[in-house]
Amino acid sequence: MAQVKNKQVILKDYVSGFLKETDMNIVESSITLKLPEGCNEVLLKNLYLSCDPYTRILMNKPGGPSMGRNYTPSSVCLPLGAYGVAEVLESGHPDYKKCDLVWGFTKWEEYSLVPSTQIHFKIEHTDVPLSYYTGILGMPGMTAYSGIFEVDSLKKGENVFVSAASGAVGQLVGQFAKLSGCYVVGSAGTKEKVDLLKNKFGFDGGFNYKEEPDLNEALKRHFPEGIDVYFENVGGKTLDAVLLNMRIHGRILVCGMVSQYNLSQPEGVTNLISLIYKRIRMQGFIVADFYHLYPKFLEFVLPLIREGKIEYVEDIVEGLENGPTTLVGLFSGQNVGKQVLVIARE
Amino acid sequence: MAQVKNKQVILKDYVSGFLKETDMNIVESSITLKLPEGCNEVLLKNLYLSCDPYTRILMNKPGGPSMGRNYTPSSVCLPLGAYGVAEVLESGHPDYKKCDLVWGFTKWEEYSLVPSTQIHFKIEHTDVPLSYYTGILGMPGMTAYSGIFEVDSLKKGENVFVSAASGAVGQLVGQFAKLSGCYVVGSAGTKEKVDLLKNKFGFDGGFNYKEEPDLNEALKRHFPEGIDVYFENVGGKTLDAVLLNMRIHGRILVCGMVSQYNLSQPEGVTNLISLIYKRIRMQGFIVADFYHLYPKFLEFVLPLIREGKIEYVEDIVEGLENGPTTLVGLFSGQNVGKQVLVIARE
Repeated sequence: MAQVKNKQVILKDYVSGFLKETDMNIVESSITLKLPEGCNEVLLKNLYLSCDPYTRILMNKPGGPSMGRNYTPSSVCLPLGAYGVAEVLESGHPDYKKCDLVWGFTKWEEYSLVPSTQIHFKIEHTDVPLSYYTGILGMPGMTAYSGIFEVDSLKKGENVFVSAASGAVGQLVGQFAKLSGCYVVGSAGTKEKVDLLKNKFGFDGGFNYKEEPDLNEALKRHFPEGIDVYFENVGGKTLDAVLLNMRIHGRILVCGMVSQYNLSQPEGVTNLISLIYKRIRMQGFIVADFYHLYPKFLEFVLPLIREGKIEYVEDIVEGLENGPTTLVGLFSGQNVGKQVLVIARE
Repeated sequence: MAQVKNKQVILKDYVSGFLKETDMNIVESSITLKLPEGCNEVLLKNLYLSCDPYTRILMNKPGGPSMGRNYTPSSVCLPLGAYGVAEVLESGHPDYKKCDLVWGFTKWEEYSLVPSTQIHFKIEHTDVPLSYYTGILGMPGMTAYSGIFEVDSLKKGENVFVSAASGAVGQLVGQFAKLSGCYVVGSAGTKEKVDLLKNKFGFDGGFNYKEEPDLNEALKRHFPEGIDVYFENVGGKTLDAVLLNMRIHGRILVCGMVSQYNLSQPEGVTNLISLIYKRIRMQGFIVADFYHLYPKFLEFVLPLIREGKIEYVEDIVEGLENGPTTLVGLFSGQNVGKQVLVIARE
């Protein structure tokens, strides 16, 4: 059986502080495209790999605050772990067979041998772009959906704020909230992204947090009557300002804190006393707890996509060799929309 | 109608930073013990006044983070507002009559004219000490009860941590949790208080947070398997350490943050990312939202008191003139148990 080259992005060492391109190496190993005898894993050809902020968390040295059972930390000298869309080349597990398209937790390389448990779902609907299964039809889509409709239950007319609002999760949170009849404002880091919020995603408003001298004032301007639901993607200063602008009995859905992932010492959040004054609920959640609802989610979201009732913006970069730059760029907001790496189109 | 002297503790000016005795003045005014014609307020003789940490919040200059509709800020040059037990001397409102005993929101003075809406409840059960209506049978008791049984619903066998554990609310939280079959540990600020937790209130453990070099380590020692429910009374460093020691799907009931009330700039809490990793829920609450449950609460707690199934420790100080010192002392933990000021015993 022929050996083939297998380009990989590997983690050179655990990362502390800001992620740099030099924390990763692009290497070329080789792989035999045949399962070892008796192996019950699945051999994948990776097609689309996902660049997600939480990837940075997986690069921390183990031993910090426990990340819980649903995180698989990256290992030094091995390819980064990440979500992706792949084609099954060979399967040692009865649930999968050659030529199946799947999405799940794979690695930053061309070909991966993964335990079947890391494959989340077979892809049944291919009338939509395959890359969508790294985003609107994958982990980020499920994150937005489960946060809004399962962790919380948005009510029509509520005031919703979402940070990192043009990102993979944020753009969907805002649109799902609009479809639920809410007033929706988002924050993002460039004028271009704020324009997207208002003109493409149909948000009621948006602001560029980098150009606001006072986030508290920006929120007061957009939410004179306060925020009912904050979908938290960034943490830090934005969270602190939001706490001052929540309404009584408001809810904060804590999905991510991307502004903190590269800090060795997280910023302190000082306005937590608002939790008492305003009887606020903050609820942390992880999408992995909700994957059993994936079929229900597809029933909800596929018609929206097919009928053009939802917009979805991807930022597609070609080639694994551009992975390190692209991933680093994610933390300074280089991406516009969901960041995807194309490894192979088929 | 005779005028009588009316000793008062008045707020000299809004307070920033640590409360000092000199922020308050003891003055003697006079009052006519007769309702003005057509007045529908209620004239009270204050018997027991409550020293509660949240009193400090009422002294802040208005215009900071809104405290919501259930707080009545203190006014400069007027007596401090506070919970208390009082006797009705005259009533302009049909719900109350002369000689009724009541508890509610009154003022730091001997006699008070208050709107009837500030009276929370008539006292129907006098086989227990009247002072209890500032504590176990009053706002702090309702706070512990509503936090544990309404905001949350503790389950048998859960691991519960409570801070300020020998205080008015903490001692009850711990005992209610023990009665629910939980494992309960508390923190307090002196050896004497920690002894109370273990030997009088029946906690499973306790520690003196002032003598622990590392709160994270102290919590790990007492909760090797983590904390299911944290009843938050203090905020700051304790909250930060708790966040690292919560179990997956743990709950933090945010009742108070006494360590922060005297700080012009609150301490930053840095470990909020644990909310995500551990899917933690933080829920702020205010007892005033639960007073409609007071009859149900009395049915629960009165038998416990009468049958000696619950311990309750008060720290009783005689005389309004000792009010300022006593209130200041609350913030350095001078009190042991619920801090009460006796103004008159009948």
